[in-house]
Amino acid sequence: MARDTRIPVVTLTTDFGLHDSFVGVMKGVILSRCPSARIVDITHLVPAGDVRAGAFALLTAYRFFPKGSVHVAVVDPGVGSDRRAIVARCSDATFVGPDNGLLSWTLRSEKNVVVRRIENQRLVLSPVSATFHGRDVFAPVAAYLANGGRFAEVGPETAEWITLPWPEPARAVYGWLGEVVHVDHFGNAITNLPNTTLEPACASQFAVMYGRRRVPVRSCYTAVPKRKPVAVPGSSGCIEIAVNGGNAARSLGLKRGAKVKLVALG
Amino acid sequence: MARDTRIPVVTLTTDFGLHDSFVGVMKGVILSRCPSARIVDITHLVPAGDVRAGAFALLTAYRFFPKGSVHVAVVDPGVGSDRRAIVARCSDATFVGPDNGLLSWTLRSEKNVVVRRIENQRLVLSPVSATFHGRDVFAPVAAYLANGGRFAEVGPETAEWITLPWPEPARAVYGWLGEVVHVDHFGNAITNLPNTTLEPACASQFAVMYGRRRVPVRSCYTAVPKRKPVAVPGSSGCIEIAVNGGNAARSLGLKRGAKVKLVALG
Amino acid sequence: MARDTRIPVVTLTTDFGLHDSFVGVMKGVILSRCPSARIVDITHLVPAGDVRAGAFALLTAYRFFPKGSVHVAVVDPGVGSDRRAIVARCSDATFVGPDNGLLSWTLRSEKNVVVRRIENQRLVLSPVSATFHGRDVFAPVAAYLANGGRFAEVGPETAEWITLPWPEPARAVYGWLGEVVHVDHFGNAITNLPNTTLEPACASQFAVMYGRRRVPVRSCYTAVPKRKPVAVPGSSGCIEIAVNGGNAARSLGLKRGAKVKLVALG
Repeated sequence: MARDTRIPVVTLTTDFGLHDSFVGVMKGVILSRCPSARIVDITHLVPAGDVRAGAFALLTAYRFFPKGSVHVAVVDPGVGSDRRAIVARCSDATFVGPDNGLLSWTLRSEKNVVVRRIENQRLVLSPVSATFHGRDVFAPVAAYLANGGRFAEVGPETAEWITLPWPEPARAVYGWLGEVVHVDHFGNAITNLPNTTLEPACASQFAVMYGRRRVPVRSCYTAVPKRKPVAVPGSSGCIEIAVNGGNAARSLGLKRGAKVKLVALG
Repeated sequence: MARDTRIPVVTLTTDFGLHDSFVGVMKGVILSRCPSARIVDITHLVPAGDVRAGAFALLTAYRFFPKGSVHVAVVDPGVGSDRRAIVARCSDATFVGPDNGLLSWTLRSEKNVVVRRIENQRLVLSPVSATFHGRDVFAPVAAYLANGGRFAEVGPETAEWITLPWPEPARAVYGWLGEVVHVDHFGNAITNLPNTTLEPACASQFAVMYGRRRVPVRSCYTAVPKRKPVAVPGSSGCIEIAVNGGNAARSLGLKRGAKVKLVALG
Repeated sequence: MARDTRIPVVTLTTDFGLHDSFVGVMKGVILSRCPSARIVDITHLVPAGDVRAGAFALLTAYRFFPKGSVHVAVVDPGVGSDRRAIVARCSDATFVGPDNGLLSWTLRSEKNVVVRRIENQRLVLSPVSATFHGRDVFAPVAAYLANGGRFAEVGPETAEWITLPWPEPARAVYGWLGEVVHVDHFGNAITNLPNTTLEPACASQFAVMYGRRRVPVRSCYTAVPKRKPVAVPGSSGCIEIAVNGGNAARSLGLKRGAKVKLVALG
């Protein structure tokens, strides 16, 4: 991969929270080995150990970063066990994290992915703790790569890595059967139904059904009265269920995994 | 405006929270278009849709940044509707955000303000989503300006923008009638009563009345015993009500909008 | 101290929270005076006024930053009173904060520490507020030093500063008596029992007793079944009590100050 940026960018996605020094320490390690790195937080509030939530955060973010960015993700309930650590590279980005599926939704959406196991002990801190590979393994490897280090140096290539199943929506007589894959800060419920399922028709020719509840599809939140539910083509590329000026997850009881139907009207 | 900094600074003030990738994505867009930008978070914990709280955060922060900084604010319940998007420039700073009053307290405190509508479609992402203009409109426009882009290129100048009323304190027989405009993380209640209302007298010649409660004005929190209420000249330029070593909002029941009186003693 | 980095790093550890503009304002002040500074958050969620918690965060973080980094810590319940403000320098780092013990655990772990009082009024903002020395005193002094300013300019050297007692573990017949010094985001209870108390034996020859509860010592979290408690050599250098895939503090009722025993088995 040609380096497209002069200023290396490293992003961080973790479940470390913001109360402790964990995230700051990772940044210290990165800056110690790559002083010019621009470090950007994606989020550190992935629920503890929730690999799927971490995978979703990374999936929705990485495409918006400069070519050549290094994305570190650490949601790692198996830290210290024999789970593997990997780096992955596609045309525009490099990823660093545990081999537990965390990177897999991102890799699934890319072609020409090369994955290597992190095995070069010269690239990590010594000794490696049994509880904080974010600091001891992933941060130094990311800094090495952000600093122009050779990808092949990290460890041997592998064709096997752990993947999380992506919940594909299913074609149905009435339209599509899908599910909620994420509830965001505003209480909007992001589904796995691509915005493209609404094309080429007009959005308002569809509704989203949640149980017996019918939510109209509109082009934006404010197309319905205040406090009314609405489904819109979302910024993640998938349809989301919202309440105008409210919190859809709370008022409609929507959670990750909830089944929803996209229904063509009339 | 002459550029006073070699290193462009972009600040972010939003209600996006820290659980999702929203803020990281905005930073990715900015760095993609202005790789040398220093991006600083003001806060992302503005209560969802609370334009006044966002306006207050920006108002208390922007003056402390280097000349030429670009301040992006996104508290945008009308995203995707026909509300306008604007940029504003005063002598030392540039602002980018929705035209819903969010920028107005800041603009009110500046002279020589020029406001333009964001209408140049070449400066924004394509397509623009209906739900995330922070990513698709405000971040790229901010990056364009931070990168030295021409202000006039953003869109046509306008003399009209939406303003929030600032709650001016009122002169009264006993002194001043004011109100709480913000409750901070420590539970301190910031009022709209300028510290200058205490001049040239000594602070201790005043008290703040909240209902029937009389809170003495002192020069610092620790001038009263632990757990006792005290009003002090605050760092925002306005008098604040605190509890030494405690949480004034919780113990005194103070909320935004609560009426308070500044009373000259004896 | 020779400057080892070309890019100055400034870290921030505070109890300011993330809801207000406080942290952003400190960064604005720093960038105004040291435009090339890389500013890294350690944490801003130290519990309000909890000097010990702030001291612990700084202690676990500073070693991982580049040589020459400037570490600003502000947990400052005595702000505006006559408490002193200090800077401290050891071989690899500089510290800036109130003289209330916040820096003392870090200084205790370093040799060749020089401490000076912040007394040079030309280095701070004017006027200095009585409530926000993070902005008015500590940020500008940190920026001055990060920008290559002379340490001796800050103020006179002092041999006296306030120290917090570090809870040393005590040798006992059965092994060691210690206590919990921090509960982290995952609910892991960090003790003051150094990992080295397990050497040269194998970790599994020990248990940690909490009241009548016996927690086995293992090499990593996943060495016990899911939802079972385990004590492991922690990344901070001290033994921590965890629950594999769970929250030890919540399930075991562990709080800071809880007494624990390290017991050699059989």
